[in-house]
Amino acid sequence: MKAAKTKAEGICHLAGAGPGDLGLVTLKVKEVVEKAEVVVYDYLCNPEILGWAPPGAEIIYAGKKAGQHTLKQEEIDALLVAKTKEGKRVVRLKGGDPLVFGRGGEEAEALAAAGIACEVVPGVTAALACAAGAGIPLTHRDCARAVTFVTGHRRDGRVDVSGLVRPGQTLAIYMGLTMLREIRDGLVEQGLDPATPAAVVERGGTARQRVLRGTLETVAAEAPAWVQGGPALLLVGEAVGRGTHAWAQAALAA
Amino acid sequence: MKAAKTKAEGICHLAGAGPGDLGLVTLKVKEVVEKAEVVVYDYLCNPEILGWAPPGAEIIYAGKKAGQHTLKQEEIDALLVAKTKEGKRVVRLKGGDPLVFGRGGEEAEALAAAGIACEVVPGVTAALACAAGAGIPLTHRDCARAVTFVTGHRRDGRVDVSGLVRPGQTLAIYMGLTMLREIRDGLVEQGLDPATPAAVVERGGTARQRVLRGTLETVAAEAPAWVQGGPALLLVGEAVGRGTHAWAQAALAA
Repeated sequence: MKAAKTKAEGICHLAGAGPGDLGLVTLKVKEVVEKAEVVVYDYLCNPEILGWAPPGAEIIYAGKKAGQHTLKQEEIDALLVAKTKEGKRVVRLKGGDPLVFGRGGEEAEALAAAGIACEVVPGVTAALACAAGAGIPLTHRDCARAVTFVTGHRRDGRVDVSGLVRPGQTLAIYMGLTMLREIRDGLVEQGLDPATPAAVVERGGTARQRVLRGTLETVAAEAPAWVQGGPALLLVGEAVGRGTHAWAQAALAA
Repeated sequence: MKAAKTKAEGICHLAGAGPGDLGLVTLKVKEVVEKAEVVVYDYLCNPEILGWAPPGAEIIYAGKKAGQHTLKQEEIDALLVAKTKEGKRVVRLKGGDPLVFGRGGEEAEALAAAGIACEVVPGVTAALACAAGAGIPLTHRDCARAVTFVTGHRRDGRVDVSGLVRPGQTLAIYMGLTMLREIRDGLVEQGLDPATPAAVVERGGTARQRVLRGTLETVAAEAPAWVQGGPALLLVGEAVGRGTHAWAQAALAA
């Protein structure tokens, strides 16, 4: 939804900061940050992006690393409404894309309910960055006509993978690392072959990206000891065995 | 997969040009285009991006609008391999994200099989741009813990929506407009309520974006007469009724 800022009224941009690498930020996000009067940012945003804001811009850290919610969601909503009502150009900077697991939908609703002009600027969501960084196609004419992005933790803290197993699909599971074995068990229970190609990508789309490749069975077994604590994404599906990696394996085997 | 270009060897960047708006291109894509010696681009790419290429860069149109395949996929693959083998910096510019319905996976495999350095640069895929442009969340803590991107046409030209109906999910159906009524019938047959919120977004993420909102039933009925021939995406799910639009409706009803 696009809306122009008037002199009297502010505007809030819900902007996707991408996965971390500055190069994976869009030109539009850079532009709105460069003109911001207030920037409210998340744990997952690369703080270097804040350096683009004009001198004197108000920079507010909103959190939220798991278990360290600096501001509650309602407080963030109220902050965005209040700052924008002051007539400011507010940028709400969120890791990835604002409308994929970013609670951007809730913030958009809060702004809209307060009658505030809001523009959503999309960003590169983690699954796209992880796939690109690891050379793994999310869809493939031969074996994946769909890709599903799903969160590995739910509001009530339980994992529910029901209905997620379907042929010809890639699964990209966000924030599921602490639940990895439960996720594997759930997927296998629903009929997914544990030998299905899988990868865990840690800090995807950043200079410190790491990739663990194998099958659902092997990555679920190895990831807990392998992971170094960065945000990680699990990719599962036939297409995960394709792409540039498939060639690298073939070359090693030759 | 990242790899540096050596003097003797070229490199091919599979780069996602985003949905069309120049602002939705990433900084990294702009950078690789500005350094390109060869750019091979698609129908869905905004041709203004080509203006960023250096003078003298070779610009090659690869197609492909439905029914007007300028180059066959095998020819594109061979072209990328040949140009990169000449030692060139090649940018393969694809609409949206290269690894989501872009055949980027196939091109990556072809490059890898030829032993060629390839870097994939992610982009804003159409569903993200359409959602942002229309103020529609793809996920929402209340009602959508997953989002599935699926293509509305298959290699064999038939539509198969089996397994796509699942509670708490948003469906983003790419390139499905000509099959819209078949898609609706298939989804309803599988138990999806025809009153589920839905939207068709045409030319999402461009200045000429248009949005048709309603339910699966109403948009399937209205879209064929409404659409103006641009690329369109169908969004279906409870979350499609949320976001900034939900407030706008409430305000109209008040």
